[in-house]
Amino acid sequence: MSTSPDLPAVARSAPEIPRHYQRIVLASRPRGPVLPENFRIETVAVPALGDSEVLVRNHYLSLDPYMRGRMSAAKSYAASQELEHTMIGNTVGQVVASRHAGMAVGDYVGGLLGWAEMGVADGAALRKLDVTQVALPVYLGAVGMPGMAAWYGLTQIIQPKAGETLVVSAASGAVGSVVGQLAKLRGCRVVGIAGGAAKCAHVRDVLGFDACVDYKAGNLEADLAAATPDGVDGIFENVGGATLEAALARTNAFARIALCGLIGGFNGQEMPIKNSRILLIRRLSLRGFIVTEHMELWPQGLQELQALVAAGKLKYHHSVAQGLASAPQAFIGLLQGQNLGKQLVKLN
Amino acid sequence: MSTSPDLPAVARSAPEIPRHYQRIVLASRPRGPVLPENFRIETVAVPALGDSEVLVRNHYLSLDPYMRGRMSAAKSYAASQELEHTMIGNTVGQVVASRHAGMAVGDYVGGLLGWAEMGVADGAALRKLDVTQVALPVYLGAVGMPGMAAWYGLTQIIQPKAGETLVVSAASGAVGSVVGQLAKLRGCRVVGIAGGAAKCAHVRDVLGFDACVDYKAGNLEADLAAATPDGVDGIFENVGGATLEAALARTNAFARIALCGLIGGFNGQEMPIKNSRILLIRRLSLRGFIVTEHMELWPQGLQELQALVAAGKLKYHHSVAQGLASAPQAFIGLLQGQNLGKQLVKLN
Repeated sequence: MSTSPDLPAVARSAPEIPRHYQRIVLASRPRGPVLPENFRIETVAVPALGDSEVLVRNHYLSLDPYMRGRMSAAKSYAASQELEHTMIGNTVGQVVASRHAGMAVGDYVGGLLGWAEMGVADGAALRKLDVTQVALPVYLGAVGMPGMAAWYGLTQIIQPKAGETLVVSAASGAVGSVVGQLAKLRGCRVVGIAGGAAKCAHVRDVLGFDACVDYKAGNLEADLAAATPDGVDGIFENVGGATLEAALARTNAFARIALCGLIGGFNGQEMPIKNSRILLIRRLSLRGFIVTEHMELWPQGLQELQALVAAGKLKYHHSVAQGLASAPQAFIGLLQGQNLGKQLVKLN
Repeated sequence: MSTSPDLPAVARSAPEIPRHYQRIVLASRPRGPVLPENFRIETVAVPALGDSEVLVRNHYLSLDPYMRGRMSAAKSYAASQELEHTMIGNTVGQVVASRHAGMAVGDYVGGLLGWAEMGVADGAALRKLDVTQVALPVYLGAVGMPGMAAWYGLTQIIQPKAGETLVVSAASGAVGSVVGQLAKLRGCRVVGIAGGAAKCAHVRDVLGFDACVDYKAGNLEADLAAATPDGVDGIFENVGGATLEAALARTNAFARIALCGLIGGFNGQEMPIKNSRILLIRRLSLRGFIVTEHMELWPQGLQELQALVAAGKLKYHHSVAQGLASAPQAFIGLLQGQNLGKQLVKLN
């Protein structure tokens, strides 16, 4: 392969390119909870590069709740993940061969190369990453899609004013952790909701939220009421169900709700909003969103996020599983809330 | 009284001012459905006018669903109606005595004088009405608060574009009838939901909606699906519950929902939104509103509504009960959907 006429750059500078790599495909669709047997790991050949294509060695894979929706055949906001195809997923890595004029071997890039150790993409579909200020995996978290989801929902939907109170569910997660810190920087009182004392301690003591309610302690409504003495002006919802109900009950007039995720119902539970009257009585605004539909705002948002991380003003935590084969179990753990912060898989 | 030094204008031009009038007070709060005994009619003395006050003979009283909320002690968006006080209500009538420089005997005025044959208010709290282009009672309907609720929810929340499909519940009512006609004028396909074949015929044949689904026919979901072949881009919700669920199920991505009323649950039923996931999956925007909180837009909206009525482009229908004593039963009928169009009470 090192002498292939298709890969002159590789032949000169990266003779160590493997002939094969591993990937994980969707073997079957879950009925109820996701199970390890819904996935299958397999070895595939490294393909030859076409014009303008780039071969990337993925260093990290991002695991995100949205993948659960893609695993279902049911109509969602995006096409289903096809069976027997590589599981969708955001990745960061390094170029190991390039037939794209703008991409050189050794460049750090982000892309959507899936649950796989390597991947090929048109160079135009990859984003070059500057790792001098921000570490590579952070581009999958606080300065990536989760950070942008936080930034978009907060700045475009909740539009918080200093002095207002915000509630953030899944507060220790990749999105919630950024929401709360951005809101604190904007002068808000921020109350997180998370599962367990350890997560809540992290949310308060490391991330700097004003308070964090442990929904597993069994007093969600009362504890949230105690933590929001002035009511709630904004809700950033990642979970749904009981946490959303509890936050809605505390809303002030004209509160705004950014509906980013409903991870609480990924196994098919109905997620009713029991008291729809409160939406009218309190004149609430609620909007569901998908951050990848608002790419025009990414440059602005990523610039803010990158600068804050570089300055040490936006903290993050990564839960890192080791090796591609660990991805299915790590993903199942993510859906069960076992991770703290951004769930990654270290690949190479 | 005609010689009272407080009422010089009256003494000259309106010697027929009665000494007493009738009003209806809230006698008790409903537990469950509103009952006639929650009200009491009584006779009170016409008071002397203070500086800048005006005495008005009410010709029409408006009955509106919001009054049901005020009758409860439960915290709502407005203060509760106090027991033993005149029931709140919008009225139109004529000035019969005035100590306000801008108001003359004979002027037509609108105000919030309640369930009463007469009332006193500061002249500044009354709005002079031009009855040369629009008949007096229309200022309680299509060119009043219900019309403005329709105009606000449609233009400020749904913001429809030509070619889009809108669903309007309580389509034959005071608000819904205006929503649909305004949306038709903006080039939309408009589908109403109403109860009974007669109301649906009115909605289609008189008001000009493209279709109307009779929810009492028992096939709400299937009938609404058939009437919305291109999906739904906007929902103007006056009822809640099953009609909202059925409309949500038909939404296209980025549909907007104006939550104006939830009359389906006024007797205390929970009104769950069973499938909150659809708000996320379809990236819906939902906003509850109270039109009296947006008075800055009333001049603009009323101007459009008044011009359309005057030009015959905005049709309306009034259900008129005769005499103050008929108001409680007419109000109960309104809550049960017995009216067609705007429910009024003719007082004098």
